[in-house]
Amino acid sequence: MIAKQYKNMLNGKSVIRTLSEFATERGKEIGYENVFDYSLGNPSVPVPQDFTDVMIKMLQEKNPMELHGYSPSLGIASVKAKIAQSLEERFGVPYKPEHIFPTSGAAAAIAHAVRCVTEPGDEVLTFAPYFPEYGPYINLSGAVLKVVPANTETFQINFEAFEEMLTDKVMAVLVNTPNNPSGVVYSEETISKLAEMLTKKSEEFGHTIYLISDEPYREIIFDGMDAPYVAKYYDNTLTCYSFSKSISLPGERIGYVAVNPNCPDAALLVNMCGQISRGIGHNCPSSIIQLAVAEVLDKTSDLSVYEKNMNLLYDELTALGFTCVRPGGTFYIFPKALEEDAVAFCNKALKYDLVLVPSDSFGVPGYFRMAYCIDTEKVERSLAALRRFVENEYR
Amino acid sequence: MIAKQYKNMLNGKSVIRTLSEFATERGKEIGYENVFDYSLGNPSVPVPQDFTDVMIKMLQEKNPMELHGYSPSLGIASVKAKIAQSLEERFGVPYKPEHIFPTSGAAAAIAHAVRCVTEPGDEVLTFAPYFPEYGPYINLSGAVLKVVPANTETFQINFEAFEEMLTDKVMAVLVNTPNNPSGVVYSEETISKLAEMLTKKSEEFGHTIYLISDEPYREIIFDGMDAPYVAKYYDNTLTCYSFSKSISLPGERIGYVAVNPNCPDAALLVNMCGQISRGIGHNCPSSIIQLAVAEVLDKTSDLSVYEKNMNLLYDELTALGFTCVRPGGTFYIFPKALEEDAVAFCNKALKYDLVLVPSDSFGVPGYFRMAYCIDTEKVERSLAALRRFVENEYR
Repeated sequence: MIAKQYKNMLNGKSVIRTLSEFATERGKEIGYENVFDYSLGNPSVPVPQDFTDVMIKMLQEKNPMELHGYSPSLGIASVKAKIAQSLEERFGVPYKPEHIFPTSGAAAAIAHAVRCVTEPGDEVLTFAPYFPEYGPYINLSGAVLKVVPANTETFQINFEAFEEMLTDKVMAVLVNTPNNPSGVVYSEETISKLAEMLTKKSEEFGHTIYLISDEPYREIIFDGMDAPYVAKYYDNTLTCYSFSKSISLPGERIGYVAVNPNCPDAALLVNMCGQISRGIGHNCPSSIIQLAVAEVLDKTSDLSVYEKNMNLLYDELTALGFTCVRPGGTFYIFPKALEEDAVAFCNKALKYDLVLVPSDSFGVPGYFRMAYCIDTEKVERSLAALRRFVENEYR
Repeated sequence: MIAKQYKNMLNGKSVIRTLSEFATERGKEIGYENVFDYSLGNPSVPVPQDFTDVMIKMLQEKNPMELHGYSPSLGIASVKAKIAQSLEERFGVPYKPEHIFPTSGAAAAIAHAVRCVTEPGDEVLTFAPYFPEYGPYINLSGAVLKVVPANTETFQINFEAFEEMLTDKVMAVLVNTPNNPSGVVYSEETISKLAEMLTKKSEEFGHTIYLISDEPYREIIFDGMDAPYVAKYYDNTLTCYSFSKSISLPGERIGYVAVNPNCPDAALLVNMCGQISRGIGHNCPSSIIQLAVAEVLDKTSDLSVYEKNMNLLYDELTALGFTCVRPGGTFYIFPKALEEDAVAFCNKALKYDLVLVPSDSFGVPGYFRMAYCIDTEKVERSLAALRRFVENEYR
């Protein structure tokens, strides 16, 4: 019997994918270099050379049976130790290897984290605007995703709406800072207030409300700032990380769950991840990729291009009269559309070969996302198209 | 709220793991070379050099953004095409790229396949003796695994018991040939009879009963024979493959689901795999590993050592009076224990530094498994220990 749930999902075509396909097709007509494709969040800078060098060295020198052998079900011990140490050094949270569970990227990290701390039917709250894949990530685990409406002034947390939705059915809260799609970094104030409320409500309800912190953009921060490390503010935090963006390895599927050592059930939760893996067929990320990434934990790709692109776009957008919260990180910007219907707005932009993503699937109507992980030269050329678009359609 | 289901699983310690840990500890006392560790199914021969060469070449020459970029959600097109072509050439089944879904090993392949063709509560049948991980693989998907008792004469299928258990609740049947733990290869006669029965019952019940064929040992076949290709005998077959054993890459987590192109819903099922991935956090195997494996599809590791080891053990075991079906492939052998209680038998063997796995968790009492993926020299030395064990304890 073919599973209806998954069959029905095939009817819903992703807006981002449709736009990306449009961009590819249009590229065949006018040259892809002339399509200002802001649809996809694909890193545009190469992996650090050190990663490539380490991979080659291991392939040349290591015993292949060790190099490609089964990873223990909780991950390779030396890799876990290095990740724990790096996190402790950077953020002052005393992780030990037993608090780290290597995963196939952040998607797998969230798949494990949510199954750790929810039973089927439990609610997970997240905050708009949010990454649309959280829908299938959470709902197909058996838990139920509920979205707290946005604070559109700042894209920090709308605490009034949050408190209202934070009932005793909620077992976990999922945050994403720096945020896709808004580019906003949650302030220390926001995270402290969130932690306070979770502590208060956990006591009130008599059960722990866990915080799942999805942080693939942690390393992409602008203006020389640091993003506050979420787990530092709340003990019961499961940090979900991916190396996809920081070292441009999205296809290698490598990341981890790090459970805050101050969480009373930290080691238990990591052990449970090993059991969850058996059910979802995860069985660890690639062993060579685990080993190579552990050698470059303190490296990033050259991420400065994203800040350069952001500044170019932010300045032009505000000059054109767009309402826009200035991103503190990521490679996204999330301005308000010039008409209420963001889909109509983005459709008109296509005439100017500007591929923008309407905000509806991010849980906020009337905005659009630009993923500026493209060459700066192309961003520069796109500004004229942006001006023509606004002047022809909205002046 | 911590998920009870996964927490409770931590209480059940794997017998194989416990034995493997014993072997490691004992190795510290007497030298691991003196522990006859037949516990784990870890390949003992290296990956073909061609794989390593292809990996290094790609790392040196390919654009890192392409090499490590996001894989499309249904897998890399060129990889799918090569797998389809290789399967068609080898087995005469006309696979096309749209019938192939690359996965993180056979565990992920089964995780997708079972979710494709079952709804929660549906039954999946498998045949004893069986790989114990099928329990969590199937049951944690929401379906229910039921085990058909063994035909202990031959370890082919016990068709009488099978027909009785094949009710209209059964939506899929999971087979594993060449078989872990018996080493037995299902004969053409067995597979034909299975296919006939599935066709007849599918008609009778008015729904398709899918066949999930788990084939990580397909390439390890003895006596110059070929293993019959299961999908050739039944259109509604989802073949789950892993390169872990054939090219000794268990840690790299690479395999696929191949849906028989003659299955009326073949392309639909592969598309559904892409949706299932979103729920279980799979999102494709490592891109560089996908690309490298696609270049060595016609290669295997030097698998002849397994046949040599099997012959040594089979001859000694039968000479010592063990009842034993001769393996046709894999790196396992599954003799009858010399007393009813296989656990007691295996515990006595430990005194002779022989690490054997009792059969109870494989769904058949009174047998034991030896995983002879170890050096031939060690197998040879173990024979004297085996003789001493039998003579001292059972003569």
